[in-house]
Amino acid sequence: MTSILTEPVTGPSAWRAADFTGEDDWVVTLTPEEIHELDAALTSARIRELPLEALTMADFPLPALGKTLERAVQDLEFGRGFTVLRGLPVERWTPDEARLAYWGIALHLGTPVSQNADGELIAHVKDYDEGGLDNPATRAYRTRNALPFHTDSSDIVGLLCLRGAGQGGGVSTLASSMTVHNHLLAHHRELLGLYYRGFVYDRRTEEGSQELPYYRNAVYGYFDGQLSCRFYMTHYIESAVAKTGIPLSGIERHALRLFQDIAERDDHRVEMTLRPGDLQLLNNNVVVHGRSAYEDDPGRRRDLLRLWLNTRYARCIPEDFARFRRGMPRTRR
Amino acid sequence: MTSILTEPVTGPSAWRAADFTGEDDWVVTLTPEEIHELDAALTSARIRELPLEALTMADFPLPALGKTLERAVQDLEFGRGFTVLRGLPVERWTPDEARLAYWGIALHLGTPVSQNADGELIAHVKDYDEGGLDNPATRAYRTRNALPFHTDSSDIVGLLCLRGAGQGGGVSTLASSMTVHNHLLAHHRELLGLYYRGFVYDRRTEEGSQELPYYRNAVYGYFDGQLSCRFYMTHYIESAVAKTGIPLSGIERHALRLFQDIAERDDHRVEMTLRPGDLQLLNNNVVVHGRSAYEDDPGRRRDLLRLWLNTRYARCIPEDFARFRRGMPRTRR
Repeated sequence: MTSILTEPVTGPSAWRAADFTGEDDWVVTLTPEEIHELDAALTSARIRELPLEALTMADFPLPALGKTLERAVQDLEFGRGFTVLRGLPVERWTPDEARLAYWGIALHLGTPVSQNADGELIAHVKDYDEGGLDNPATRAYRTRNALPFHTDSSDIVGLLCLRGAGQGGGVSTLASSMTVHNHLLAHHRELLGLYYRGFVYDRRTEEGSQELPYYRNAVYGYFDGQLSCRFYMTHYIESAVAKTGIPLSGIERHALRLFQDIAERDDHRVEMTLRPGDLQLLNNNVVVHGRSAYEDDPGRRRDLLRLWLNTRYARCIPEDFARFRRGMPRTRR
Repeated sequence: MTSILTEPVTGPSAWRAADFTGEDDWVVTLTPEEIHELDAALTSARIRELPLEALTMADFPLPALGKTLERAVQDLEFGRGFTVLRGLPVERWTPDEARLAYWGIALHLGTPVSQNADGELIAHVKDYDEGGLDNPATRAYRTRNALPFHTDSSDIVGLLCLRGAGQGGGVSTLASSMTVHNHLLAHHRELLGLYYRGFVYDRRTEEGSQELPYYRNAVYGYFDGQLSCRFYMTHYIESAVAKTGIPLSGIERHALRLFQDIAERDDHRVEMTLRPGDLQLLNNNVVVHGRSAYEDDPGRRRDLLRLWLNTRYARCIPEDFARFRRGMPRTRR
């Protein structure tokens, strides 16, 4: 059986807004030496003309930046669960160079995994003109809608800002799902089991031909003395109802709304606006993230390069808690 | 939204085994005068040769027994939620007479409702040779299996014993689901939400042609200051999994097992063996019932006549909490 954690989570992952004085607490600005090292690694990797998947960490020697990245991984796994690396020179890189440099950094952080049915390892988070979140055939990252608090499927998500939203919006918000659990335990203990049971999510047309178009996933799981969270997009729950024929109960709707409300509290959430060259890294196990809606300038779309990855310190989680943690299966060719 | 009761239930419905000294606390033996009155009403109703559905309370005048039945309804709705009327002369009645007399009593208790897709208003609880509970095309009352604690769909269930099990078994067990809730609240509060969300149940081939073969129902609901329970057969949950493709989570299995374990505690449950002529009446809103497996004598099957009914004091419950409370839709002709 799955047990429910009935003690508060302590330590740096259970942070609150007041634990930070400002962005200096989580922004790590890369030094000129680190940028130089990255450019040199990029140049040597480009010369080899290998596909991304064929490259290894050894193809991107980063003796100094590598130590910074190791500290970032430690912050993600054992600290507050998020960090921002600032100053990647995305404006002077070509799109291909940005992609390759990002990949090189990713190999130092962990193992990138597929993010969708096309098997994409680096995906553009931007408006694809496929409509909004209410379109059950599209995924959230392909819209410019406000996204409520959620996690992605992998352990770690990286968002490298290439271009911000010209007409404003797209503010990033984070909250500690450990702090949300502490709040639920203290004030709504009778609801906890609902989150451990979880919800049924729509695969949003990404299922294989022999698979059901939905699956159940827990929001919280307590394994080996560690609490982990998977809070996928509530819109995927709503669109799954049409496929299962099983409506959400009033208590489930209440629990979903309550999770958002607790995460959104002023004393819980932090906000940040990513600049071009900022790489935001989040540990989905302990942090939920969202963003406000945004508007693009004509012909210049907000563009974040997204990575999903698992690091070398990845915690043990059963398969049925985080089914796509090691990547979304490639079901389209 | 549905709210969760976070105070203990008090009053006679939250009983424990030690609240009773023995069956004298719940058995009401009918007097010779009451039996005589019933026989007279039976005779006058038979002469009219009307179908059961055409008869009304006025066709069964029971001035004395009627008062006893009113007290039974009060016990069901406002008291401990169960009672046994003893001494119905089923052994000298023909099967048709027993059926008609039972119907007459039922009209004094409340309104009988359909129990299955055939629209049966009085069903025989006996072994139909359709296999056991594991056959997903049969319902529990048609087997001789042990039945774990459960409720039926209507508010009230009546079981009139025509014949016991010749080779033993079939012992009836009851527990207060109000006491189970009190225990959960005190010792497993974090699980309560799971019961208020409920489970998905198999319709067991009784769905209409335009209906899904399963539906979700809550175990507990708190409405208008009153807690109510619907804990349908766990076997129906298991067989629904094959139809939805959504497996039970570990925490759901734990919650289902825990409910049984709490109800089965020696300090919670009471046991009784029904004799021919015993009419056991239970309020599903506050009492769960089960029975042990049994073996029949060759050619003489254990036979209980079952009624589902709603009484004039029926509590207000939303439709989505107890969908078939007013009867299982007749979908077979």
